Amino acid sequence: MFRPLDEEKVFKDPVHHSIYVQDATIWKLINTPEFQRLRRIRQLGTTYLTFHGAEHSRFSHSLGVYEITRKIINQFERNGYKDWPQEEKMVSLCASLLHDVGHGPFSHAIEQVFDTDHEEWTCEIILGDTAIHRVLKEADEQLPWKVASVIRKTYDKPIVVSLVSSQMDADRMDYLLRDAYFTGVNYGTFDLDRILRVLRPHQGQIVVKESGMHAVEDYLMSRYQMYWQIYFHPVTRSSDILLKKIFRRAVELRASRHRFQFMLPSLQQLLEGKLTVEGYLSLDDNVAFTAFSQWAHEKDELLSDLCRRFLDRQLYKYVQLETMDLKLIEDLRGEWSRIGLHPDYHLETDTVVDLPYDVYKPGTETGASEKPPILLLDEKEQVTEISAKSDIIRSIAGIHRGKYYVYYPEELLISRADRLQAHTRELFHL
Amino acid sequence: MFRPLDEEKVFKDPVHHSIYVQDATIWKLINTPEFQRLRRIRQLGTTYLTFHGAEHSRFSHSLGVYEITRKIINQFERNGYKDWPQEEKMVSLCASLLHDVGHGPFSHAIEQVFDTDHEEWTCEIILGDTAIHRVLKEADEQLPWKVASVIRKTYDKPIVVSLVSSQMDADRMDYLLRDAYFTGVNYGTFDLDRILRVLRPHQGQIVVKESGMHAVEDYLMSRYQMYWQIYFHPVTRSSDILLKKIFRRAVELRASRHRFQFMLPSLQQLLEGKLTVEGYLSLDDNVAFTAFSQWAHEKDELLSDLCRRFLDRQLYKYVQLETMDLKLIEDLRGEWSRIGLHPDYHLETDTVVDLPYDVYKPGTETGASEKPPILLLDEKEQVTEISAKSDIIRSIAGIHRGKYYVYYPEELLISRADRLQAHTRELFHL
Amino acid sequence: MFRPLDEEKVFKDPVHHSIYVQDATIWKLINTPEFQRLRRIRQLGTTYLTFHGAEHSRFSHSLGVYEITRKIINQFERNGYKDWPQEEKMVSLCASLLHDVGHGPFSHAIEQVFDTDHEEWTCEIILGDTAIHRVLKEADEQLPWKVASVIRKTYDKPIVVSLVSSQMDADRMDYLLRDAYFTGVNYGTFDLDRILRVLRPHQGQIVVKESGMHAVEDYLMSRYQMYWQIYFHPVTRSSDILLKKIFRRAVELRASRHRFQFMLPSLQQLLEGKLTVEGYLSLDDNVAFTAFSQWAHEKDELLSDLCRRFLDRQLYKYVQLETMDLKLIEDLRGEWSRIGLHPDYHLETDTVVDLPYDVYKPGTETGASEKPPILLLDEKEQVTEISAKSDIIRSIAGIHRGKYYVYYPEELLISRADRLQAHTRELFHL
Amino acid sequence: MFRPLDEEKVFKDPVHHSIYVQDATIWKLINTPEFQRLRRIRQLGTTYLTFHGAEHSRFSHSLGVYEITRKIINQFERNGYKDWPQEEKMVSLCASLLHDVGHGPFSHAIEQVFDTDHEEWTCEIILGDTAIHRVLKEADEQLPWKVASVIRKTYDKPIVVSLVSSQMDADRMDYLLRDAYFTGVNYGTFDLDRILRVLRPHQGQIVVKESGMHAVEDYLMSRYQMYWQIYFHPVTRSSDILLKKIFRRAVELRASRHRFQFMLPSLQQLLEGKLTVEGYLSLDDNVAFTAFSQWAHEKDELLSDLCRRFLDRQLYKYVQLETMDLKLIEDLRGEWSRIGLHPDYHLETDTVVDLPYDVYKPGTETGASEKPPILLLDEKEQVTEISAKSDIIRSIAGIHRGKYYVYYPEELLISRADRLQAHTRELFHL
Repeated sequence: MFRPLDEEKVFKDPVHHSIYVQDATIWKLINTPEFQRLRRIRQLGTTYLTFHGAEHSRFSHSLGVYEITRKIINQFERNGYKDWPQEEKMVSLCASLLHDVGHGPFSHAIEQVFDTDHEEWTCEIILGDTAIHRVLKEADEQLPWKVASVIRKTYDKPIVVSLVSSQMDADRMDYLLRDAYFTGVNYGTFDLDRILRVLRPHQGQIVVKESGMHAVEDYLMSRYQMYWQIYFHPVTRSSDILLKKIFRRAVELRASRHRFQFMLPSLQQLLEGKLTVEGYLSLDDNVAFTAFSQWAHEKDELLSDLCRRFLDRQLYKYVQLETMDLKLIEDLRGEWSRIGLHPDYHLETDTVVDLPYDVYKPGTETGASEKPPILLLDEKEQVTEISAKSDIIRSIAGIHRGKYYVYYPEELLISRADRLQAHTRELFHL
Repeated sequence: MFRPLDEEKVFKDPVHHSIYVQDATIWKLINTPEFQRLRRIRQLGTTYLTFHGAEHSRFSHSLGVYEITRKIINQFERNGYKDWPQEEKMVSLCASLLHDVGHGPFSHAIEQVFDTDHEEWTCEIILGDTAIHRVLKEADEQLPWKVASVIRKTYDKPIVVSLVSSQMDADRMDYLLRDAYFTGVNYGTFDLDRILRVLRPHQGQIVVKESGMHAVEDYLMSRYQMYWQIYFHPVTRSSDILLKKIFRRAVELRASRHRFQFMLPSLQQLLEGKLTVEGYLSLDDNVAFTAFSQWAHEKDELLSDLCRRFLDRQLYKYVQLETMDLKLIEDLRGEWSRIGLHPDYHLETDTVVDLPYDVYKPGTETGASEKPPILLLDEKEQVTEISAKSDIIRSIAGIHRGKYYVYYPEELLISRADRLQAHTRELFHL
Repeated sequence: MFRPLDEEKVFKDPVHHSIYVQDATIWKLINTPEFQRLRRIRQLGTTYLTFHGAEHSRFSHSLGVYEITRKIINQFERNGYKDWPQEEKMVSLCASLLHDVGHGPFSHAIEQVFDTDHEEWTCEIILGDTAIHRVLKEADEQLPWKVASVIRKTYDKPIVVSLVSSQMDADRMDYLLRDAYFTGVNYGTFDLDRILRVLRPHQGQIVVKESGMHAVEDYLMSRYQMYWQIYFHPVTRSSDILLKKIFRRAVELRASRHRFQFMLPSLQQLLEGKLTVEGYLSLDDNVAFTAFSQWAHEKDELLSDLCRRFLDRQLYKYVQLETMDLKLIEDLRGEWSRIGLHPDYHLETDTVVDLPYDVYKPGTETGASEKPPILLLDEKEQVTEISAKSDIIRSIAGIHRGKYYVYYPEELLISRADRLQAHTRELFHL
Repeated sequence: MFRPLDEEKVFKDPVHHSIYVQDATIWKLINTPEFQRLRRIRQLGTTYLTFHGAEHSRFSHSLGVYEITRKIINQFERNGYKDWPQEEKMVSLCASLLHDVGHGPFSHAIEQVFDTDHEEWTCEIILGDTAIHRVLKEADEQLPWKVASVIRKTYDKPIVVSLVSSQMDADRMDYLLRDAYFTGVNYGTFDLDRILRVLRPHQGQIVVKESGMHAVEDYLMSRYQMYWQIYFHPVTRSSDILLKKIFRRAVELRASRHRFQFMLPSLQQLLEGKLTVEGYLSLDDNVAFTAFSQWAHEKDELLSDLCRRFLDRQLYKYVQLETMDLKLIEDLRGEWSRIGLHPDYHLETDTVVDLPYDVYKPGTETGASEKPPILLLDEKEQVTEISAKSDIIRSIAGIHRGKYYVYYPEELLISRADRLQAHTRELFHL
C-alpha cells in the first residue's frame, strides 16, 4: 500500500518553484525508465524552431501536472470538503503524473502520419510489462487498471477524471504557464494561486466558486492567446509539415524496399506500422534527430532534402489564403507538376480552425474536445455553466475563426518563377 | 561589406525579452547549419538531471551573448565615447555570436576524455570550409581571421577581446542569468541593466564607473552562488562521471577491436581520436544519446550498464570526504578489486576547487582564468582594480575552498557490504 | 531653447526599471514645487483601503507616462519614420509629464462633489503664475500654451494629442501596469515592449502594425479585468462614498455657518467653491487626512462619525441589486427616515456601467470617452479600425454591463432591524 | 479564547501574493483604529524622496511579518516538530502583527530628536486603554502582557522572541523583500520559500538545516546590499537631516514661546515632550506634512525655509569625507558663522557605520544589535554558529566600514563662495 517518504523530496521547478513528492509510490514512478524517458521528448515538438526557449521536456510538464493536482487535493483535504472522495488521492496523483507517459517524439506529427494515439500508448505502458506497471501494482493490485481508466475517461468517479481532463484541468493549467515561461511570452500567465483557491468538489464534479469567475476569464483569455500566438504559429506548423513529409517519404521508401543506409529496429517497426511497447519506448527525440541527420545523406533526394531542411531550419515559406479554395489548390498542384516540383512534397495546405470550439464550448454533448464545461457555484450552492454569467466568456465562445495557409519551398519556386502563371506569381509575391 | 537589414529581426527570448538582429551578416550567420546545430547541444550538459528545467541549448545562450554585446556597444555609440573603436562593432558582434560554436555534446566530459578544446574547434569552424566561414568572408575578406583571433584572445584590440572574455564579459552575464532562469533558482539574478549602464570604454579596456561598484559586487556574489549551487552540484558531477566512464569504456573497446553493434562514422572518428571538422559538426546530443541507448544493449557489461544508468538516471551515489586522502582512495581501490568491483569503473573521486580562484583573482599574471580583472573608473578618471575598493570583493577573493567526493554504484556496494571492512562500511553509511 | 543635460538622470522605477531624463527642461519641471506636490497625492485615491499595496502616488505615474512617451518617440526617431513630426518631441514629453499635475486629493470624489475638473486645473497650473509655467516659457515662449492645448485635445497636431490621450495612450499603458504592480494582481500585465515596437506614426495618427493585433487584444483584456477587479471594486466605491459624504456634510455645515474647530484657508476655499490656483496647489492627501482626523472630534455627529469611519476603515456595507430600482430606493429612504437614519447620509446607491463603452467603442463620434479608436496598419499601408479584424475585440466591444449597489452602515441597521419591514430585512440579509 | 474564522480572509499582497487570516483575534486586531493608523505611516520614512516607489506603509509590512510568521509556524506544525511549543502560536502571531504598532511618522528622525523609542510605544499601546488591548484581553486575560514581553524580548519562551527578533527574523525577511519590491531594486531578493523550508525549532531556538546554508548566505548578502544601496543612501540621509532640523527648530521656538500660526494638540505635546498615548496615536505622516506645509509660512525664517525645502525636495547637498575630522568640522562651523550661515542649521555631519556589526556578528554578547546569531543544524543534530561553516559569512562578518558626509545648502554656499577660504572652496567643489 501507499506509504509516505521518510523525508519529502523537492524538485526545483521554474514554474511552481518547488514540486513536493511525499509518497514512496510517486517517487518510484518518477524513477522508472519509462518516466525518465520523458526527459528526452520535447513538450512542444518543433516549437523551439519558432521560439528558441521552448526546449523543455514532457518530464517537467508531467511533474507540473502532478504538482497542481497535489495542490488541489491538498486544498480539498485541508478544508475537509465532504464531496471529495479522500480515498481517490493516489489514483488522482498517479494519473496526473503519468497522463503523458505515452507521448513519443513530435507526437502530433507522428500521430497524424502513423495514425497512433498517445493516450492509447499511455494505457499500454501502464498496463504492459513495464516498471511503471510493477510500481503501481505493488502499491495496489488494481491501481494500474484504475489509472488507465482515468486516462481513458471511463473511471467511475468522474471527479477524478475531471482533475486530469476538463476545460480547466491540471494538464492545461500547467502547460499554459510552462509554455509561456519557456517561450518567454507573457500572454499565458494567469493567477494559478487564485484559481486553485476557488476550486470546490461538488457532487462528483469540480466547480468554481462564483467569486473566482474573473480569474477563470483571465485563464481562458490566456489560453486563447497562447493558441494563436504559440501553438498555431505558422512557422511551427511549417516545421511540423516538414516532419510529416519526412516520415511519409520514409514510409514510402520502406514500402518500396529502399535499403536505408541508417536504420534502427524501433524506427523500422514505426515505418512498418508494427510498433511494440518496447519499440515505442525506445523512440525519442534523439533517435528521430539521429535518423534525420543520417538520412540527410540518403540517396533519395526528396528524403535527404527534407531532412537537411529540418536540421538546418530551412523551412518552407507560407502564404495565407482568405479561404481554403480546393480548386485553387488543385490548380497549384497541376502547375507544380508542370514546372517539375513534386505536388505531394513541395506543396502543403494547412487549416487552423479548432480553437474557437475548444476555447469554450458550452452545452454540447459531442465534439472534438468533449471535455466537461466550467461550472460556477454560487452562494446558494447553485451550479451554473460559466458562459451564462460571464459576458466575456459568452462572447468568445461564439468566435469561430479559421486561418488557411499554403506552404512551399521558396527558393525552388523562385528559381522557376518565370515558368509560373502570372496569378500564381502574384499569389506567392514573386 | 556590412549592410543593415531592411527590417530588423526580433527573437523572443525569455531572458532578454527581445533579441534584435539588425545586420544582414548576423542574420546569415544565425541561419548557417553550423550555428543551427547549437540547438541540438544543451547549454548545461547533464545538469538537467539535477535541475530538470536546465534543458536549454547553446543556441539560445549564443544569441544572448550577442544581444548583451550589442547593447553594450549601443550604449558606447549612443554616448559617443571616444575610447570605443567604432569600426570594431561587427568583429565584436560576430565573435560574441560565434564564441561557442565549437562546443560539442557534453563538452566538459568529452574534453576531459578526449583532450579536445572547444575554443580550438570554434576557430577551426570559423576558418574551415563552412557556411560560417563563407558568410564572414563575404562581409569582409579578413573577418574570419579577425573573429578567430578574438576567440583566441590574440586580437590586437584588447577591448574587443574583453567584451567576450573577461571577469565580467557578455558570456558570463548571459549564462548566469539564463541558467538561473531555466533552473528556476534565483541566486543568479543581478541587475544587468544597471551594469550595462555603468560600463565605459577606457584606454583599450572596459571599465566600470565607480558608482556601479555595488552592482558588480552583486554580480560576483550571484556568480559565487551559481557555482556552488548549480555548476558544482554533486549530482551533476555524478552524471558527468557516468558520461566520462561511458566514453572511456568505448575507447577501450574500440582499441581492443570490439565490434560495436551500433556505430556512426563521426563516433568512430571520436573514439579513435581522428575527428575532422565535418565529423565534429555532425556530433550532437542526439547522436550521443542514440549511441547510449543502443550501447545499452552491447554485450560488454560495463558499457551497457553505464549506458543504462545514464539513460534511466540511476546515478552513482556519493559520500563527501574531509580531504582528498590518496592513501584512502588506494585502499578503496584495493578493496573494490577484492570484492569483485571494478576500481576504474565503480569508483571515482572528484575534487571541486576551481571557484575561489575564479570568483575573483586580483593582481596575478598567470593562472587558470587569465582573465583581466574588473576595474573601477572614478570621477578623476583614475582606474583602480575593484578589490582595492570593495570590502566584499576583497573578502571573497581570498576564499579558498575545496570539496571532495567519492562516487560509487550504491546497490552494488550494498549487495557486497558484508565483505567490506568495518571502517569502509562506516564511511559509506552501510 | 531645449538643451540636453550634461549627464542623463536616471530614476529607479519598479515598473519600467529605469526612467531616463535627458533634457534640462524635463529635469527642471520635475523639480518644481507643483510637480513634487504629486508625491503627496495617491494615484488610486481610496483603493489602498481595498488593496493595501496601492499606496503609490501620481508622481511615479507621471514619470511613467513620460517614460513611455519617450520610448515611443525614440522608436519613431530611430527608425526615421517620416510621418512623425520631429519638432513635436518636447511638446509631447512635457504634456505627458504634466498631464496629471492638476489632480488634487481623491480627485474622483472631489470632482463629483465640487464639480471641478482636473484637466482644467492642469491647464490653469501650466498657464498660471507657477514654477512650471516659468520653466516651460524659458524653454520656448509658446510652450505653455502648446502644452495646455495638448491637454485640452485642441492642439493642431492630433498625433501629439493621441500620444497622451487615446484608447491606447501612454497614460493608460502606464497606469494599468503600475496599478497592477502595486496592488499585486497580475491581470493588468501585458507586453508593453511588444506594443511599443509595433506603433507607427501614420498620417497624423498613431497606428498599430497588424502583426501586433494580438498584443493589443491582450492589452484590452487586461484593461477590462483591471476595471472590474480593481477600479470598480465595491469596497473602494464604498470608501469613495464615505469621502463624498464627508465633503458634502462639510459644505452644508460651512453654508450654515458652523464654526469648525479645525480649518485651513485652502479647505475653506474648497468648501465655499472659491479655490484659487494657489489654494488648490496647497491641497493634498495630507491636508485632507488631517482635516478628517480633526473633524472626527467636531460636534456635528454626522461629520464626526463619517470621518472616524473613514480613518478607521469602518466602511459602509453593500448589497448588490439586480437593477437600479428607483421605486425601491425611494421606499428605502422613507423607511430610513422612519427608523431614525438619515436618508442622505446613511444610504447611497451606486451604478457602475461605464466600462463596456470604454473598453472599446468603434465608429462613434460622441460619447463618454471620445478617444480615437485603435487602428491597424496592414502590409499594403491600409488602415482598419481594429474591431473589424479582431474577433475578440469585436466581441467585447459589444458587451454592455451594469452593476448596482446599495451602501449603508451595517451596525446601525442591525441595531434597528426589528423595526424594518420584512422584505427590507431580507434584502439586507438581516 | 481563540476561534477560527468561519471563512478565512485573504489580503492580496504584492510580495507574498496572498496573506491569510484564519483566526478571529487576528482579524479584529487588524481592524482596530490603532492598527489601521499604520496605513498612514510610511514604512521607509523619507526614502520615497530618493526611490519614488518607496511609498508603502507600515500597515502592509506588518501584515507581511504576520504572514511569514504564520508560514513558519505552519511548517513546524505540519511536520510535527516536537521542539515547537504549539500553545505559543497565537502569542507569536499577535506579536508579529503588532511589533511595529508603536511606530510614529518618520520614526528614526523623531526618535533621535525627541529621544523616544517605538518599541516602548508599542508596549504602551498594547497595555494601554486601546482597542488592541481589549481585543487581546478578550482572547486571553494574559495575552497583552505576553505579547508586550515578546516585544521587549523578555518572554520566557525565547523561541517566540526569536521569530520576531533575531538575525533572520520574520521582520527582516519581510522588509528586505518588501522594500526591494517597492523601490524596484533587485538586490534585496532572496529565496524566501527555501529559507522557510529549512527552518527548524530546536531546543528553544530556531535553527537552519545545514543544507540551507547557501540560502542564508544569499539572504545576508541581500541585506548587505540593501543597507548600502537603499537604507544608507546619502540622499535619504539628507532628507532625514532636514526633518530633524525642522523638529529641532520647532522645539526651540516652542521653548521660546513662539506663537505658531498652526498648531495641533498632539504636535504641541510632541514639541513639549509630554506625549500621551492618545496624543501619540493621533500623530501620523499626514499631520507632520500638514504642519510642514503650514509652517512653510511661519515668520521664523529658519523654520519656514526648512519646511519649504522638505516639501519641494530642495535637499541639502553633500560631500563625502575620508574620515570624520572633528577639527575640520569645528573650523567649518566657525567659517559658517563668519559668512553669515547658521552652523547648527546650515551644516550637518553624518557617519554611517553600523552595518558591518549588524550584517553578522558572531560570538559576542553585547552590542548594538544583541540579536541571536544564525545557527546551523547538521545531520547529527549538532548546532554550529553559521560563520564557522560559511566562508562567505565569515568574510563579511569581519568587514568594518564607515562613510562620512557633510551636508549643506548648496545655493547659500555658492552665493557666498567668494568669502570662503580656498581650501573650503575646494572641499565643496566651488
